[in-house]
Amino acid sequence: MMTFSLLKKDSGSQARLGKISTAHGIIETPIFMPVGTRGAVKTLTNQQLLDVNAQIILGNTYHLMLKPGADIIAKAGGLHAFMNWQRPILTDSGGFQVFSLGALNKITDDGVYFQSHIDGSRHFLGPNESMAIQKVLGSDIVMAFDECAPFSADRAAIERAMDRTQRWADICRAYPLQDHQSLFGIVQGGMHPDLRKRSAQDLAAMDFPGYAIGGLSVGEPAEIMNAMIEETVPFMPEHKPRYLMGVGTPRNIIEAVMRGIDMFDCVMPTRNARNGTAFTWSGKISIKAGRYAEDFSPLDPELNCYTSQFSKAYIRHLLNVDEITGLTLVSLQNVAFYLDFMEKLRHAIETNTLPAFYERICAIYPN
Amino acid sequence: MMTFSLLKKDSGSQARLGKISTAHGIIETPIFMPVGTRGAVKTLTNQQLLDVNAQIILGNTYHLMLKPGADIIAKAGGLHAFMNWQRPILTDSGGFQVFSLGALNKITDDGVYFQSHIDGSRHFLGPNESMAIQKVLGSDIVMAFDECAPFSADRAAIERAMDRTQRWADICRAYPLQDHQSLFGIVQGGMHPDLRKRSAQDLAAMDFPGYAIGGLSVGEPAEIMNAMIEETVPFMPEHKPRYLMGVGTPRNIIEAVMRGIDMFDCVMPTRNARNGTAFTWSGKISIKAGRYAEDFSPLDPELNCYTSQFSKAYIRHLLNVDEITGLTLVSLQNVAFYLDFMEKLRHAIETNTLPAFYERICAIYPN
Repeated sequence: MMTFSLLKKDSGSQARLGKISTAHGIIETPIFMPVGTRGAVKTLTNQQLLDVNAQIILGNTYHLMLKPGADIIAKAGGLHAFMNWQRPILTDSGGFQVFSLGALNKITDDGVYFQSHIDGSRHFLGPNESMAIQKVLGSDIVMAFDECAPFSADRAAIERAMDRTQRWADICRAYPLQDHQSLFGIVQGGMHPDLRKRSAQDLAAMDFPGYAIGGLSVGEPAEIMNAMIEETVPFMPEHKPRYLMGVGTPRNIIEAVMRGIDMFDCVMPTRNARNGTAFTWSGKISIKAGRYAEDFSPLDPELNCYTSQFSKAYIRHLLNVDEITGLTLVSLQNVAFYLDFMEKLRHAIETNTLPAFYERICAIYPN
Repeated sequence: MMTFSLLKKDSGSQARLGKISTAHGIIETPIFMPVGTRGAVKTLTNQQLLDVNAQIILGNTYHLMLKPGADIIAKAGGLHAFMNWQRPILTDSGGFQVFSLGALNKITDDGVYFQSHIDGSRHFLGPNESMAIQKVLGSDIVMAFDECAPFSADRAAIERAMDRTQRWADICRAYPLQDHQSLFGIVQGGMHPDLRKRSAQDLAAMDFPGYAIGGLSVGEPAEIMNAMIEETVPFMPEHKPRYLMGVGTPRNIIEAVMRGIDMFDCVMPTRNARNGTAFTWSGKISIKAGRYAEDFSPLDPELNCYTSQFSKAYIRHLLNVDEITGLTLVSLQNVAFYLDFMEKLRHAIETNTLPAFYERICAIYPN
């Protein structure tokens, strides 16, 4: 079972420094968790993740239950053993992907009937099934199974989804996981402050080891997202880690940290890498652009990462001729940047220099 | 300028141990050179190549002249600087790719008019042009520009190509390269022993720093290839390195070593990796096969390589869901295997145990 220590609260914001201790190691918060959807962070090896000091990675229950299947990971002895990753793992519940990727057949109070986006095969996933799979995966942090109403849903639909998420949270909370596993509840409620408040309060009463905010970063402006965080955080327990799911840009992250969030995950660093976008301490670089064809300066002289030493011209060349090595180098750069950004963010909280660091981030990552 | 030291000759075969010293480091022979076609060994980083102790890599003049173009690599300060690789590099002449990939427009005594396989752009490559580009690339070992007649060509056509290759060799030999560069002549002559002999003798008279055999492994049976090597090697200078271009399987390589060859390159380890074939000390493994779905044993317990520790089931899963990390892991395994195989081969020559090692290789790599 994990423990969370609140080490410091920032004086000028809601930002906090913390430490999560798990059976697989320590996680310093605020933390960014690279996404290892199907048992690998895209284009990277575990060694490369260790080299850039990834403290925890995320696995996707939906993807892993379809391929290779929970039975195979069970026989391997869990996800840590299957993928040979010794540090902490967080798994999501599968809910978000079922609602966004699968072909939904029917939603009942027991769960969701859906068809695989890969082969159309029929599956059922509810709170008990999600817990059973995540128990087998053996992740250190397990997410409760939630219903994610679409961004476009009306208030009544969002409230129904939230109420169902609450009932499912009860079922998940009662489910006997492995001893080293800790379950996080997920606050829903769309863009409605009163629903967010009710959801947070109801979950807080259940004393989860940690809490997440779901259903944000689904297309709303950053101002709305930040407003919703502000409406929710006051009702989340102070001495439990707070996780904003699926967020986001460096600016999104620092603004959420300043509103009291501790944990983040996002596919942006690896997905954007595959589109040729590098995150650097000089801002975002569209590395395929013609102006880098003869730019032999290092990609990011301010970052101490394997990729940073290679020239923009070289990396551009590799991407332009579709060399996979280029995707790997940019993905590594981007994950390294995000983790370095979080380390500097923690340092800024530690040294009471968050306002200056926030200004710096806004200057290079305005969105 | 490189130097070659012949350290030992095997008593029971033509195999030899040697050492090539270049401005960028030492190469122990017999050596295998991973192919970095367009400035990267496919799916791998330089760091991964260093981790498996690649002593020299190969770059392709044809591909690099088209993208990014010799001018850009010149501005970067050469291929070593462009790709940030500090160890030796061998570049081919572009001849083989012009004849096999490009759309040939016209072959003259001066060179070849062709169109790029990428965009149809028109180019000319002859001995002077190939030397000029390789001089800019700054490779430690430069290959003479040769005409590769197709395997199906008749004797007259092969003889014409060989004679032209000989005239081009004169031009290349006279070309002023950089001080640290060494030029290899290429023996041609198809499957005709008398032509091979004449080609080898004519080149030997020109005192190149090293010699290659081109135009083999083009579809002929291994017995024919071996016979052609046997017909050629006696006319290649003993105290110069001998390079068999584009070969081959582990068995091809050991049989060529036993006939006096010192250097090899082949895309097989990386290309086959992308098809899901792993080279291991238990033989070739088609890792996508269903029988590995629940095989949690390490891919290759006998190889000390990063990939070897991962289970067959995990690597199979990554390939089956098209995770690039899977391609990287298998490519790394295969390059590591080839380099370990060469190291064990050198050790077998050193310890007079080549016959037993040859038997072992034939047992696990019958073809």
